[in-house]
Parts: sequence; structure tokens; C-alpha cells
Amino acid sequence: MLDALFSPKAVAVIGASNRRLTIGYRIVENLVESGFKGPIFPINPKAPYIKNFIAYKDIMDVPLQVDLAHIIVKNTRVAGEIEKCGKMGIKVVIVNTAGFGEIGPEGVKLQEEMLAVAKKYGVRVLGPNCQGVMNSDPEVRAYCNFTFTSMVEGSISLMAQSGGVGEVINNRLYELGLGFRMYASYGNQADINATEILEYWGNDPGTKVILLHIETLQDAAGFAEVARKITKRKPILAMKTGRTKLGAKAVSSHTGGMMAVDTTTNLLLEKCGILTFNDEEELCQAARALAQLPVAEGNRVGIITNTGGPGIIVTDELTERGCDLAEISDASRDTLQGSLYPEASLANPIDVLATATPEHYQLAAETLMSDPGVDIVFVNFITPFFVDTEGVARGLTVVAKDAAKPMVACVMTEKQGWKKTLQIFNDGGIPTFDMPEMAGKVAAAVARYAALQQRQDSPPVTFNDVDTAAAAQLIEKTLASGRSFMAQADAFSLLAAYGLPVPAYSETGDLDGALAAAAEIGYPVTIKVESEEVVHKSDAGGVVLNIKDDQALSEAYRTMAQNFPGAVCFIQKFLNPGIEIMVGANRETEGLGHVVVFGLGGIFVEVMKDVAFRLNPLSADDIEAMITGIKGFPILEGVRGRAGADIEKLKEIIGRISMLLNNHDVIDEMDLNPIFAYPEDREPGLVDVRIKLKGK
Amino acid sequence: MLDALFSPKAVAVIGASNRRLTIGYRIVENLVESGFKGPIFPINPKAPYIKNFIAYKDIMDVPLQVDLAHIIVKNTRVAGEIEKCGKMGIKVVIVNTAGFGEIGPEGVKLQEEMLAVAKKYGVRVLGPNCQGVMNSDPEVRAYCNFTFTSMVEGSISLMAQSGGVGEVINNRLYELGLGFRMYASYGNQADINATEILEYWGNDPGTKVILLHIETLQDAAGFAEVARKITKRKPILAMKTGRTKLGAKAVSSHTGGMMAVDTTTNLLLEKCGILTFNDEEELCQAARALAQLPVAEGNRVGIITNTGGPGIIVTDELTERGCDLAEISDASRDTLQGSLYPEASLANPIDVLATATPEHYQLAAETLMSDPGVDIVFVNFITPFFVDTEGVARGLTVVAKDAAKPMVACVMTEKQGWKKTLQIFNDGGIPTFDMPEMAGKVAAAVARYAALQQRQDSPPVTFNDVDTAAAAQLIEKTLASGRSFMAQADAFSLLAAYGLPVPAYSETGDLDGALAAAAEIGYPVTIKVESEEVVHKSDAGGVVLNIKDDQALSEAYRTMAQNFPGAVCFIQKFLNPGIEIMVGANRETEGLGHVVVFGLGGIFVEVMKDVAFRLNPLSADDIEAMITGIKGFPILEGVRGRAGADIEKLKEIIGRISMLLNNHDVIDEMDLNPIFAYPEDREPGLVDVRIKLKGK
Repeated sequence: MLDALFSPKAVAVIGASNRRLTIGYRIVENLVESGFKGPIFPINPKAPYIKNFIAYKDIMDVPLQVDLAHIIVKNTRVAGEIEKCGKMGIKVVIVNTAGFGEIGPEGVKLQEEMLAVAKKYGVRVLGPNCQGVMNSDPEVRAYCNFTFTSMVEGSISLMAQSGGVGEVINNRLYELGLGFRMYASYGNQADINATEILEYWGNDPGTKVILLHIETLQDAAGFAEVARKITKRKPILAMKTGRTKLGAKAVSSHTGGMMAVDTTTNLLLEKCGILTFNDEEELCQAARALAQLPVAEGNRVGIITNTGGPGIIVTDELTERGCDLAEISDASRDTLQGSLYPEASLANPIDVLATATPEHYQLAAETLMSDPGVDIVFVNFITPFFVDTEGVARGLTVVAKDAAKPMVACVMTEKQGWKKTLQIFNDGGIPTFDMPEMAGKVAAAVARYAALQQRQDSPPVTFNDVDTAAAAQLIEKTLASGRSFMAQADAFSLLAAYGLPVPAYSETGDLDGALAAAAEIGYPVTIKVESEEVVHKSDAGGVVLNIKDDQALSEAYRTMAQNFPGAVCFIQKFLNPGIEIMVGANRETEGLGHVVVFGLGGIFVEVMKDVAFRLNPLSADDIEAMITGIKGFPILEGVRGRAGADIEKLKEIIGRISMLLNNHDVIDEMDLNPIFAYPEDREPGLVDVRIKLKGK
Repeated sequence: MLDALFSPKAVAVIGASNRRLTIGYRIVENLVESGFKGPIFPINPKAPYIKNFIAYKDIMDVPLQVDLAHIIVKNTRVAGEIEKCGKMGIKVVIVNTAGFGEIGPEGVKLQEEMLAVAKKYGVRVLGPNCQGVMNSDPEVRAYCNFTFTSMVEGSISLMAQSGGVGEVINNRLYELGLGFRMYASYGNQADINATEILEYWGNDPGTKVILLHIETLQDAAGFAEVARKITKRKPILAMKTGRTKLGAKAVSSHTGGMMAVDTTTNLLLEKCGILTFNDEEELCQAARALAQLPVAEGNRVGIITNTGGPGIIVTDELTERGCDLAEISDASRDTLQGSLYPEASLANPIDVLATATPEHYQLAAETLMSDPGVDIVFVNFITPFFVDTEGVARGLTVVAKDAAKPMVACVMTEKQGWKKTLQIFNDGGIPTFDMPEMAGKVAAAVARYAALQQRQDSPPVTFNDVDTAAAAQLIEKTLASGRSFMAQADAFSLLAAYGLPVPAYSETGDLDGALAAAAEIGYPVTIKVESEEVVHKSDAGGVVLNIKDDQALSEAYRTMAQNFPGAVCFIQKFLNPGIEIMVGANRETEGLGHVVVFGLGGIFVEVMKDVAFRLNPLSADDIEAMITGIKGFPILEGVRGRAGADIEKLKEIIGRISMLLNNHDVIDEMDLNPIFAYPEDREPGLVDVRIKLKGK
């Protein structure tokens, strides 16, 4: 419970100062100027008073009960102050002081000492090396922070890993008149961490939307668990920065360079139902919309406009961001036909014309609201001087009130002259945006949020015909042997245990065995050397494909035996190449699902980087989105007279792989590359596998 | 000369009114409120006065010389009023009235009548169906327009095809404190058109930057001619809307669906040195920067920051938009090493730390300005309360003053509290932006502008060994025959005349001829039916590839003769497929160069849409950019152990095609698909060609 942190009844500032350009002065000043509701106790061993307050020489001298203390003294003295706080029954300290974990071993030691003292007395610590927190609740007004943004009451709570980014966003929320509910800059997270704060805000009724700035996610699993619960109740919007970081990290050695470092974070955020952004402005504007709008049911936008050009811009933005322009129903057209101007355009966008009256706008909005083909109503409104713009605003708020669908408005005007009009919109629960581009982006964010909410409800794909006992045994066998990479035969057996289509295979240590196996399997066959050391077998000459008879097999076997003395030989039915598919997986973060990657094999993956990622486990919708989401999807459908692939069979393969990964967290990496897919009625084949277990 | 339009000395308003919500009132009011410097004459046959002015019954009654008149009367009466204006010596009329060319045949007739009268008296017409113009020049202050944006003096002139978009941009410029120099909304362009206005602004010393909003470009060739001259002197920034329009237009039937309708417009704009945008906000913000900054020499950005998080955001934006992070030289590092805080980071971004002093900032900026590896200096500055932020601003303006390199600043602050600091930046010629994303976008626009300026200076590729006479003759022959598509033999001869590598070929009408030709060429050969009707020959069975001997040729010939009786047969040396390349061209707009498209053939074009476009003629830089710009470029270099292509030979091919197209505007479409490219030392082969001439 972080009540004492965010809603302190009395605050002490240990290390308060009268020098204006110090944090010790600034915090006292911020508390006073923001209208903190309780007593403030500056602590300073020398100064008789700080600002308007009597100063106490020591926190132990404070005459009233304090629940929150800032600590700004030198890093080596912090632990001592915490001990005194503990003795005084202070519940939380904000350690603004830097010079702890972030500076290396020496600081780490200080941080550990400080934490030990805090733990002894049950004192919770925010920081060290942090700005602090703010709470605009009119009953609290706690500006326990040394930044400069004005504190205006709002319904958005913000946590930023970078103090700088936090300032930029807070300032922008202020400029937009949105203010904020609570703010936290948590520094080193030595004790109180982002997840705990997130959970607290999830339970705060005054917080309607949570904004997060993330550079690196700590305790991703814990974060995910908490976030998933919150996004069922209120929107979380996040911005991950550092997306172009040069050091790209590979999913695996086969699929190197495909995934930038941050892809996992964004996949995780989306898996938790968190809406992600690449732009602070868009983040703030979308927060404004999501704080007050009902959740949409889909991505079909109906547009009403009184000006053509900006309507085109909105259409561009919505289309590029995956929204559909709603098909206006015949019934809706009939309703509008007789009532709008005869020259009005009844396609989508509905152009009601510059001279449209309040009645026209209201009718058009009502019609779209009740049209079952429309999920989001978008109003594009330029304010001509000859129109009763306040009437238009009033008419639209009548429609938006209690409507089940969200309404987003782009109101293009001179803000001073049309202040009243804007006020009517915003008081009536219709968020307004100045520019058609941003309004379009926000409407698209509303649609994305709808999709995320629906995705949260899709269950992972599972199968009943899976031999989990056999699978567990195979993995156990590899672990017991001390290997990281599963032997070919074991890996294929594992796949087969999950019902995946594996060409017939056998393992042998001599030529006679190889010939017998080939006879059993039937030519053509492929042989591979079975050796953990030879990971890229074909590069090392450890693979011979498409062997057609005993003689060729004998030759190939002898060469291999020479090159890899004593190695076991793996023989498998050779398949004629179909469409090459690649599925890979990588368990990046402890306690989270694997990142699964899907693409067409070969140059489509390696050169065109045409792949789709998802965090496991996968739902049927996830698999569908991955398959149809790659640019090369038409190749799977069949193009240029060439046959495509059986897509239903592909979906099943991905689903079974997802289940396998989900059941076996011990798998670190898996590469199925290539999988050959064929036209309908022919079973695909997993012809190459590489499975690395967590380990050693 | 449009002086009378933009700098009128006296304005009449024919159709002025006292009803507040009419255009006839609004224009009079706008003229008065904006402080127009000359007399205003409202014309109204009934009212004794309009607003504060005596009203004249007829324009003929006005006692002083008028040079500009608004006409707002009914469409059928406009011509009559123009006639009277002509008699009064009025030079320009702004016809605000609608109901002309835009409403169909009836309106077209009225428009023509009106123009005839205007021409007779030498009266120039803006519109009809337009808003009008504005000029903020303090000597003029002409608000000849019925919109609502406040007129503040500035150095940016704006022309918008959509009045609505014009309002949005003008409003935004106003909010940003930029104002504008001149504005024009030109409606139907019956007489005065966008190009003429553009030329006028090109010569206006008060206009530092020109902004254009474009939906469809009229008289593209005339526009291009004027624009090219202006961009050598001042920046033109444009936004083309409607970019996702569903109806995509094909470059040709082979390369269908690759190019959206607007691609040509953007290619043309860039060819003219015009910077293009997809976002009004970015357009306005970039205009602000380009209005005052020197032109950069490249795209290498050096960043100074006092906060980590926003520095990462800037890096993301710059990298995504094609900028390079400058390598800080050793000399620069040495300079900074001893002078910044020891904990400062000297990589790029240079993190001077939150507590950095004015001296630190100034030194870092000076160092980057004089570092030869830096083209653009980017300052990221959050305003901590404990820093002399005005000092920082002053220090930076000292560096920016008279600097040869542009400096862009992201100043993250609370605007009221730090008003003075912002003022110092802006008065000192350093444009500031609030958000790191937008500041990054603007810096990237400054870099794009540098590249466009350099591109303007690159000459088209030409060759001296071209047989232009033979080429002209071949084209003449086709035109004389009345065909649109060149016969195969002629088309290949044309390519050969331009020195393009064409496999040996021959044409014949009988089997003996075919056998003789094959003997001459040498097997294997390909035969194709020569028929203008059979455009997609292979679909119709009109092509047989890889014929290896006389017997196979005889069979193929007989089948073809049966299927296409009387058709001529085209025989060509068969080439083993190399890497498939596609080059296409389409002359979209009369008087402009062809749009040239380059890509790898087959699915790379048809499925992956991995192509590069440029407007002909092409410079060596253009060709380089096209080849390296496709995602599949590594395939040309050679990947996965497969040989690549001789890229120098490919460049030459594109260059020769460019020259061919440039010399023969009569070519409507050309498709070279596929061209087979091979590893070094082997000549590529143009194995299929389709050339359509303008015509019939």
C-alpha cells in the first residue's frame, strides 16, 4: 500500500535549504505553491527557518506525526536518516539523493546498507536517485518532487523511466489542459518499483488512464501479471524509446538481425493489452480520448465533414493505420437523403457542406451512431463564420451523451474566437483535436484499443492429441545428457509427440544400419551427421540431400564417416521442396512466453525481413494475424500461376508449436527452418529443426 | 504581374452587405479589422451604407480609382459586373461567387462568358469559387478573404488547393507565432493560376518560404518550370493529400498496382527541389526552421543534450528518417574532455548533464559547429530550475549567429515560466521546438532539404555512342504504320541503337526463314508470335522458350502458325535466366519526364512491391539511389552463397534507358521485364520488351 507515498498527511524534507537553486529549497517551495494540505517540516541542522517555516535540526525533533520524508542529504548519510525516520514511525521516504546503485560497486553497497536499515524499521523507500511523486487530488495536493510542471487536477497518471521524458509529457498534458492525477519518477527502484506503483494506480478510482514511459522493462513477468489485470478495467498507454538501437539482437542464429532489441517489450506490452506509441504528442492526445470515451467495438470509422480537404487527410491517416472506412447502410443514406442539403455527399466521408446547420450535424451523427456498420464516429468540423458553431457543438454533445460508440472530433478553428464552441464540445464529453492528422491518429488509437481488448479475450490454441509424457521424457533425456542442443532424432520425436508432421527418420552408427533404415523409410533420403558441435551442418559438409539409392547412400555415408569419425548418422525421408516456411522461437525473458517469429524462408526472411512476431502463447487470432500479416502472404495463397500452400495446415502447425513452447519453458530457442508447405491435401513437412534447451 | 491582387491600393466589394453572416459583410469587416491601408468601397444597390462606409449603388459610381474588386453577386450577374470593372480601369477581380466550372456544363458556359469579358477589358480574374487572398505586409494589410484566421506579419506564404486545409495551416502558423506573408485560395483557376502566384511569390523578397497544399497538380509542366527556378533561391514545402486513394493507377499493365496515384506528384515535387510532407504540423514546423536557417551540407547530426531520455527519442527520429549521427572527431573530444563535467558523455549524443552551465553548452555547440564531420547541430535542452537557462540560450545564440551550419533546438520547458529563455533562442535565430519527436523531424527535414538542393545540381546521365538517327527512324516507322505497340524487332532495334544489350534476334514469315535465323543465331532460341493484338503473348501460347534444335523449332513453328495464322514470327537467342530485373516507364503527364520504376522481377515486384521510382531524366545519383533503395538490394550483391549481379552494368542499362526515354517523349509506356542480370563480366540481357507509343 503506497498511501503514505501518494497521499501523505505530513511531509518532512530532510536536507531542506534556503538556497533557491537547490533541491532542498525547491521541494519545500513546490509543496507550498501546489497547495499541500498538511504540515511541512523542513529539517536543517543550521538554519533557524526555511522559507516560511521554522526549521528543525533533526527529524527526531519534529513535534507531529510525519508519514513521508524526503531525504536530500549526502549519500553516505542517507542510511542514518532512514534509521531516524524508522524510529519516528515514518512510513515512506523519497530518497532524492543520487550516488547509489547507478554509480557502481561503492554505490551498490551504500544502497544495500540503506535498504537493510529501511527493512529493519519497515520504512518503504522510493528511489534513490529519483525526482519523487505528485498527486493532484484536491484533498492531498502533494508535490513531492523537484520539477517545474504546474500541477493541475486531471485523470491521467504518469510514470516515466526518464525524468526528462516525464517532464515533456507532463508539460504537454498541462498545455493541453488535461493535467494529471498522479506522477512518479522512481529512480533506481531499490524498493518500491514500477510494478507496485502500477498496481496502486490500477486501484485508484481517480486514475482513468495510465501512461508509461519505458526504456527497459525490469521484472517483466511481474509487470505483465499486474498490467494484464489493470487493462481489463482501464487503459494503459505506453511509449518504449530506443526502438532503433543499433545493436539488434537475434531471435536465434538462423534468424539473426530480424528483431530489434525492443520488439520483445512492445510484444509484451501488447500482449498485456497495453497500447503502444512512438510519439509523446500522440500518446498524450490518445490519453485524452481514452480517458473519456466508451470502448469501440471495431475499426470501422464513419466520418462527417464540412470541408473536403481535411476529410481527405483524415481518410489518409485512418487508412494507413489500419482503420476501415465504414460502409454507410442504405437505411442511413435514406435517412440523410431528405434532410441534408441536396448537394451533400452521402458516401463516407459524409460531406454535409460548409453551410451545414446544427440539425444537419446532429442528424448525421445520430445516423452513424445507430448504423450497425459504424464503430467510431469521426466529426470533422471547420468553423465557418456564417454557421452557428455553438449550435453544432451542442447538437453533437446530445448525440455523444450516453452513446455506446466513441465520437472523436477534429475542430479546426481559431481557438480564442471560438473558445465557447470548443468548451461545449469538451464539456459534453467529445474530445476535440486541432489538426486532422492528429485527430485521425487518435481515432486509429481508439480502434487499436478495441482490437487489443478483444485480443485479451482470445484463448491460446490447444490440442488434445498431444503426448506430453513422451515429450517430457525426451527433454529430460537431453538435460540428463548435459547437452544444450537436442539430438536430431530427439528433436523430431518431440515435434512428433506434439502431432507435428515430421518425415520418417532413423538414427544409426554404421553403414548397414543406414541401408536398413533407408529401406524402411524408402528413397530418396537425406543423411545428416548427428553432432552437437556441428550446428550449421550443411556449411560443414555434414548433410547430403536427396540420396536416391543404396550406392549413393553408401558413398555419402563413407565420406561422412571419414569427415566426422565416430559420429552418429541421422537418416530421414527427403521431401521435394515446397514453399519454404520458417518458424522460430526465443525465450528472451524469464517467466514470459517465447517470442515466436513466422515468415517465408530463405531470402524472404534473410533479405526482405518479411516476418511477423508474437509473444507466446498464441490464440487463433494471433496465428491468423501472423500469417496474413507478412507482405509475402499472397505467395501462400498462390501467385503467378504457382500453387500456394494449405493455410489451414500451416495454422495448425503454428498452433502446435505454440502449445509445445508453452508447455516447455525449458526450451530456450527453437528453429524450424525450413518447413515445406504444399498445396491442399498434402501434409507439410518439418525438414530441419534446431532446439536449444536452457541450461549449462 | 499580380501587384494589384496582392497589394491593392483601393478595394471595392461588389455585393457588400450589412447582414453579418454573409461573405459581403465579412470581407468588408476583414479589410477594416486587419488594417487595410487604402479606401474601401462597398457596392450595394439598396443599402445607403455598409458598416461604417457609405455604399455605392454601382461600381461605376465609385469616385476614386480602384485596382481590386471582390465580386460576390449571383453567378449570372458576374460577367456584367466585370464589364463595368473593366470600364472603370480595375485591374483584378476576385470572384468569390461559386456556380461556375465546378458545377458542370451550365457553369462552364458562364465561366467562359465571364472570361471573355475580362479578357476584352484586360481584367485579371482570381477564382471564381474562391476565398481570396491576404497580404500581411505592413504597407498593405490586405485581408481580401472571408476566412477567420488572424493576420500576423510573417515570412511564409501559403497557397492551398483546399480552403479547409489552408485554414488549418494558417491557424497553426498563427498559434506558433509565425504568421504569414501572403495567402491565396485560388478556386477554379479560370485565369490566374497556382503557377502564376508561385512565380510572383518567388520574386517577393518578403516571402522566405513558400508552402503549398496540393490535391491535384494542374499544368504540371508549367508548374515544374517555375518551381525549379524558385527552389534555387528559397525553400518550397508541399503537402500532397489523398495519398492512400484506393484507385491506384498502374505504371503499365505489367507493373500494375505498384504506384498510387499521387506518387507521380511527389516525384515531380522532389524533382523540382520541393520538400514534401504528409503532416500539416510537420510542414508548419519545418517551415519555421527553413525560414531562418542556413542550408545544411549533409545529413550528419551532432546532438547536445542535458537529459538522456529525450536524447534517445531524438536519435530514434533522426535514424528512422535517414539522418546519420555524426562521428565526433578526436579533436572535438579533446576540446570537450577537459571542459565539460567529468561524468559528461562525449559520444553522440553528447550528454552535458542536467547541471551543465551556459559555458558548457556554448563550448559544445562551438565544437560541433567547427567539427567537419557535423552538418547539423541539434540542441536538446530541458530547463532545470537550478540552471541559468537564459545564459544557456544566450551562449547558444552567440554560436548560431552567422554560423554556416543550421542549429535546431528542442527546448523542453513550461512556456510561461521560461518565456524569456525561449525568447532569447528565437530572437537569436535558433528555432525551438517543444517535443523531441517534432524537433527530430524538423532536423531531418533540414537534412532532406540539403539532399534535394544537391540533387538539383546532378546532371542527367548521357552516352555518346548512341545512334539517335536509327532510333528516330524506328519510331517513325511504327508511327507511320499506325501501330501503338512497337513490333518486337523494332523495339529491340531501338534498344540496340541506344547501346542496350539485346540478345541476337530475327524476324521471319516462314519456317525456312525461322530455321535459317536459328542457324545464324545459334541454339537455344525462343520464338514469339509478332502480333500487336497478342500483348500478353505467353498467356496466349504465343511464346516458346528454350528451343534446342531444328526439330523442336519446326514443331513449335507449326503450332504457332496454326494458332496465329499469317502472323510474323520473332526468333531470339534464348538466355539462361539470371537475376530477374524489371525496368518500366510511363509518361503520366504531358510535358514532364517519364516515371521510371526499377525492381527485381517476378514476385519481388508483384507481391512484395519492392520497387523504386524516379522521374526521368535520371542522374547518376538517382540511379544509385534507385538500385540501392530497394529492400532486395542484397540479392544484387549476392546472398546465401548465390552470385549477385554486375551492378555497374545495371547502372549503365538504367542510364541508357533514361536517355532513350528523355530523347523520345513519344514513348508512352515501356516495360523491360525481365532483364536478366549476371555476375561480373557477363553482359546482362534484355529478353522482353514492350514499348507503347503515344498515339492513335
